[in-house]
Amino acid sequence: MKTIDIQATRSYPVIIGENLLEDIGCIVSKVHAPCKAAIISDSNVWSVYGDLVASSLESTGYCACNFVFPAGESSKNSGTYLEILNFLADNQLTRTDLIVALGGGVVGDMAGFAAATYLRGVPYIQVPTSLLAMVDSSVGGKTAIDLPAGKNLAGAFYQPKCVICDYSVLNTLPEDIFRDGCSEVIKYGILYDPELFQHLYASGLDFDREYVISRCVELKRNVVLEDEFDTGARQKLNLGHTFGHAIEKNSNFTVTHGQAVAIGMAIAARASSTYGICEAAITEAIISILEKFKLPVTTDYSDQDLYAATLSDKKRAGMNVNLILPRHIGSCIIQATTINELQPFIKAGL
Amino acid sequence: MKTIDIQATRSYPVIIGENLLEDIGCIVSKVHAPCKAAIISDSNVWSVYGDLVASSLESTGYCACNFVFPAGESSKNSGTYLEILNFLADNQLTRTDLIVALGGGVVGDMAGFAAATYLRGVPYIQVPTSLLAMVDSSVGGKTAIDLPAGKNLAGAFYQPKCVICDYSVLNTLPEDIFRDGCSEVIKYGILYDPELFQHLYASGLDFDREYVISRCVELKRNVVLEDEFDTGARQKLNLGHTFGHAIEKNSNFTVTHGQAVAIGMAIAARASSTYGICEAAITEAIISILEKFKLPVTTDYSDQDLYAATLSDKKRAGMNVNLILPRHIGSCIIQATTINELQPFIKAGL
Repeated sequence: MKTIDIQATRSYPVIIGENLLEDIGCIVSKVHAPCKAAIISDSNVWSVYGDLVASSLESTGYCACNFVFPAGESSKNSGTYLEILNFLADNQLTRTDLIVALGGGVVGDMAGFAAATYLRGVPYIQVPTSLLAMVDSSVGGKTAIDLPAGKNLAGAFYQPKCVICDYSVLNTLPEDIFRDGCSEVIKYGILYDPELFQHLYASGLDFDREYVISRCVELKRNVVLEDEFDTGARQKLNLGHTFGHAIEKNSNFTVTHGQAVAIGMAIAARASSTYGICEAAITEAIISILEKFKLPVTTDYSDQDLYAATLSDKKRAGMNVNLILPRHIGSCIIQATTINELQPFIKAGL
Repeated sequence: MKTIDIQATRSYPVIIGENLLEDIGCIVSKVHAPCKAAIISDSNVWSVYGDLVASSLESTGYCACNFVFPAGESSKNSGTYLEILNFLADNQLTRTDLIVALGGGVVGDMAGFAAATYLRGVPYIQVPTSLLAMVDSSVGGKTAIDLPAGKNLAGAFYQPKCVICDYSVLNTLPEDIFRDGCSEVIKYGILYDPELFQHLYASGLDFDREYVISRCVELKRNVVLEDEFDTGARQKLNLGHTFGHAIEKNSNFTVTHGQAVAIGMAIAARASSTYGICEAAITEAIISILEKFKLPVTTDYSDQDLYAATLSDKKRAGMNVNLILPRHIGSCIIQATTINELQPFIKAGL
């Protein structure tokens, strides 16, 4: 078991280990005294881990209630968000009670946004159950819902009281969802850490879970520490995401986030060598590791399709799009690109 | 013209004066460079001041668009909030653009909440057009929407870039809405300032607007400075509000906020002398000034009706309700009351 402290507006621990869920009541009680605990989860996760988590909380003195919504990105909308708010109000949760987000990124983002805004903010705990959520969305306090116009268009910066990463739950994760998370893990290697990249390249899907998850959380912690409110260095975490979001949107979210980010990183890598930002060998290494993890590296959408979807992406500041582009393994740049330069750039990357 | 600086997470000016709206573009440009400006307003305010504000902004280089919703507390719901978010997304507002909240408390609360959450936070400016909004809701960064279970149950703490109080607009405010605001103004006198109370008692509805508005904003600033996130001293501003919210809820919001707060203060005042917290003369002075402003001091709802509605009020921490009760004019206490003690207390105040 390993604990990594995140220093943000509020300081909080990320606890990484095996078989933590069965003792979750005890772990939670160290950061928040027994109270009403509203568990927010999705149908897939709840059916496997709901009883375990609820009974551990109950046996430690918490009074547990739960709100479970249909699994999938399509639930991450304003309708589900409002249902959660009304559930919290109907159960008369107060500012001294607790929300427990039990699930992947969709659960964490939505339960986190509900926690940030119900009564103008109540305490919450992230219990990520997918690799993606463990290494990315559960750390750093970004919460959000999708709007019809695009992903994550409404949300808040709001830090949890703690994050509990029980990587034994990855054993019950479907392989394609696990691979989805690998896409973000590979991203950390490309952005910051040649050693992590090498370990992943060498071990493929059988990588050392505690080492890799801990390293990714540390890397994310360093970024959040530097830029909690996403005005500078934190933008680098968007490597593969600007094009990835455009692909997700074009596919009406049938392409998963991890697959879309993998394709987005491949597009960024190809265009970067075409434009002389990195050498061809770097592009090859990136494409090669993605293929090794059986992640997609091409798309059938045209440069026009992706360009149109990118224009409504929230990362756009005025007439510029900030693209994150690889120079070496472990080093990327933020490049402000005008919207006129964008379409040929995408074309070069397809 | 007077400027009062508010020191919160972010520091910002409250500008109080006459005929400010016709120069609003110039005033806004001192805190935020020309950009896209989304004006959020209600049907009443927009019909009188919309063109004036939009053309002043346009002539100073802003590109103005507007979202106007039906006037009234019943618009302060999740439906209107989502419409505003979708409007901002459809107009492709970015993090460097600006939201202008032009209207009373409902507009300010809802546009502020949209600003706090669209793209996880974009800059906004409060332009309160009711007395209530000028002295209360526009200062201090509390934003919110109502949920079916109660008022202000979802929201955020989010500070504007500046607040522009043009008190000439009070000339076009219907008298009953003006009196509504007087209820909160009287509240500041009871809570903190015998001199303000005396001025109001002596002048009635013809009070000195610049003096009274400035004084109330200063008093609110002092409270926000001490307790931005509403965990202690700021609770005092809830004088009359716990019972007031219960009355609004019972009436299905046909009793206005100011009327409800006036009745709530009268209930608190009567119960306080019954329970020996203040002398009978204090209760009489409070009832008397409210009557002088033609504000209601009684209700037909029973102690049971009000008790039931109070139980779902968000100010309840666990099994206690924090009541704000007058001791003298200019001095109130926060009294933690168990839910069992609450109903007889309400009964004593009716």
